[in-house]
Amino acid sequence: MKLSLLDDLRKQNPVVLNISNFVTVQDVANGLNALGASPIMSEEIAETKEMVGISNAVALNLGAFTKEQIEHLRIMGQAANAAQKPVVLDPVAVGAINYRKQVALELLQDFQVSVIRGNAGEIAALAGFDWQAKGIDAGAGSGDVIKIAKTAAQKFHCVILMSGATDYITDGQQVVAVHNGTPLFAAHVGSGDMLTSIVGAFCAISSDNYFEAAQTAALVFAAIGELAVGNQKVGPGSFTVNLLDQLAWATTDQINSIAKYEAL
Amino acid sequence: MKLSLLDDLRKQNPVVLNISNFVTVQDVANGLNALGASPIMSEEIAETKEMVGISNAVALNLGAFTKEQIEHLRIMGQAANAAQKPVVLDPVAVGAINYRKQVALELLQDFQVSVIRGNAGEIAALAGFDWQAKGIDAGAGSGDVIKIAKTAAQKFHCVILMSGATDYITDGQQVVAVHNGTPLFAAHVGSGDMLTSIVGAFCAISSDNYFEAAQTAALVFAAIGELAVGNQKVGPGSFTVNLLDQLAWATTDQINSIAKYEAL
Amino acid sequence: MKLSLLDDLRKQNPVVLNISNFVTVQDVANGLNALGASPIMSEEIAETKEMVGISNAVALNLGAFTKEQIEHLRIMGQAANAAQKPVVLDPVAVGAINYRKQVALELLQDFQVSVIRGNAGEIAALAGFDWQAKGIDAGAGSGDVIKIAKTAAQKFHCVILMSGATDYITDGQQVVAVHNGTPLFAAHVGSGDMLTSIVGAFCAISSDNYFEAAQTAALVFAAIGELAVGNQKVGPGSFTVNLLDQLAWATTDQINSIAKYEAL
Repeated sequence: MKLSLLDDLRKQNPVVLNISNFVTVQDVANGLNALGASPIMSEEIAETKEMVGISNAVALNLGAFTKEQIEHLRIMGQAANAAQKPVVLDPVAVGAINYRKQVALELLQDFQVSVIRGNAGEIAALAGFDWQAKGIDAGAGSGDVIKIAKTAAQKFHCVILMSGATDYITDGQQVVAVHNGTPLFAAHVGSGDMLTSIVGAFCAISSDNYFEAAQTAALVFAAIGELAVGNQKVGPGSFTVNLLDQLAWATTDQINSIAKYEAL
Repeated sequence: MKLSLLDDLRKQNPVVLNISNFVTVQDVANGLNALGASPIMSEEIAETKEMVGISNAVALNLGAFTKEQIEHLRIMGQAANAAQKPVVLDPVAVGAINYRKQVALELLQDFQVSVIRGNAGEIAALAGFDWQAKGIDAGAGSGDVIKIAKTAAQKFHCVILMSGATDYITDGQQVVAVHNGTPLFAAHVGSGDMLTSIVGAFCAISSDNYFEAAQTAALVFAAIGELAVGNQKVGPGSFTVNLLDQLAWATTDQINSIAKYEAL
Repeated sequence: MKLSLLDDLRKQNPVVLNISNFVTVQDVANGLNALGASPIMSEEIAETKEMVGISNAVALNLGAFTKEQIEHLRIMGQAANAAQKPVVLDPVAVGAINYRKQVALELLQDFQVSVIRGNAGEIAALAGFDWQAKGIDAGAGSGDVIKIAKTAAQKFHCVILMSGATDYITDGQQVVAVHNGTPLFAAHVGSGDMLTSIVGAFCAISSDNYFEAAQTAALVFAAIGELAVGNQKVGPGSFTVNLLDQLAWATTDQINSIAKYEAL
């Protein structure tokens, strides 16, 4: 865990290029911007190479899921590999829709990702576990969750950030658990998408250690969510407002003072 | 009117699958989520059947209006019919643009809808009335409005929810008027789209009575809008925040205590 | 400068038709609506002529940048010219991506624009200046900026609104500088897009003088940004909320009392 990466991020303002979930694109752009990164969103394949060229990291979100967008995801992933820029993948809904899982697995053969950020059901689907049968909200112990995350990391040779009430981050061997967070994240559509792109921003300034980048991103985002709630009565609308404010305001000292994480 | 449907909705968390207005998609997703439903948004035809399979209702919004999206609307409407899932249609701008009216009328021949949610001008256009000539904001008495709504319900064999300062809900014979609401709804782009998808959520948990589902959705949404204003000075920005908060917080008791509706 | 245009705008509620940046489309629609204009967003070429017919101005944003959207931009620009409706162009990212600059320059040959609204780097790219080499945030004096803006206005026979900490508005001969504003605009993704469409609304009610329309739009928006901050601690989330509220609430008297602008 290296919280000073947040200060580095705010000094360097890394450019994060996104193929975004169309549902949450503005929210993700505002989140990156508030934290101190510089977001770019693109929908046109013809500008991919130039866009990758001016970027420091690429975030690919399968919420962009038309056939054209899947082709765009593939070409941007390959361009990022060629330019040695980190790639973060968000496998939206691969745990629920079999067709999405197939597409995601094909993409993961076509380019190398640095980090996959998903929920337990999504990571389980990619890793080949029968998660649905156990139910997503209950019935699966944390032991299983860690096994699933490690298996996925080994299978795809990347870092896994499995987010939930507790976030698990693993490079396939080491595992860190982040216990910060708030149930309000689930009340705000786009929390996961925002975290995915923020992981991209941290990878941009920690290019030699994506495992550290992903853990720090998870801790920073989860702790800022707690700061956005504070002691107030906060609903889904006011949480979004407070979250964007705190992404801009929260200091490493504040985050450090409430941080709850452990190496497992 | 059956306000207990709101409690059922919050217990059952129905999955509402949306083809969304691209202008308001995140807002609609957040609104459904805040109320207690589970939103899914899709743009890819190839996953339609699987998506419909995991959903409890389908909301189709003509704000998605490219030729590809119209084909998607058609295929999803037919898939929902085949799977016997309720379908809510929002005929965005058919009152203003003749081309949209033609497309909407064709779609309404290609699949059966459970509820159409639109404003008076949109419902009038579908029902074949010359509403534009009278002006949308004035010049048409409530008697005319009710006749238009009933005619549309009979023509399309569905429930009509005509929303405005007063909402009229009819199955073609019975009519209920909901008098709750706030002018702030008009200051917030996407209020109508949000209501349309919320009607879908109510249909999902009242599958034997869409007339009751539509009335209850209209009352719940209109009353929550009032609660979002309260006694404060609220503008278009703060209204959106408060609306999302109150969608999560408002109880059936609170709604009941301010409910103003009547059978006509 | 003609602040009474704001009162006219609120009385006349001009219809502004937009091809929007997909990142910020709801925000722009809400901004137009809050100010008192009537937004329409379209993605389908087949309805272009009818859409232009019911509109009072057209705002074209190159954030919509797929090949299909570029064709749509072209057809809508030409339809607006044919119908003698004002056209405002926002050349998103042409300062950073060469491919975008080429596309924008082609579009500017295919139809006539009334106003271009961009940042210094974007206007410089269109005018043919080597701005990137100087850096966007520093290194270029205001003298250069004015020369760039005037050159662009002369080259494209239109009004230029170059926005930044100080906004410069020119018809190629006269130049007005607007000194109002707040750094929070940069913390809110979509501020520029919103201004572009608001310029469209002002052009709709000042069809004989786009230079006056553009200056007034710049002053109104910049001053409302200041009112949205006031004396509070405002972050990126709360700024967006306050901005939408103040777009609805701010009076010409309030704006006039804090206005800082000069003819150069």
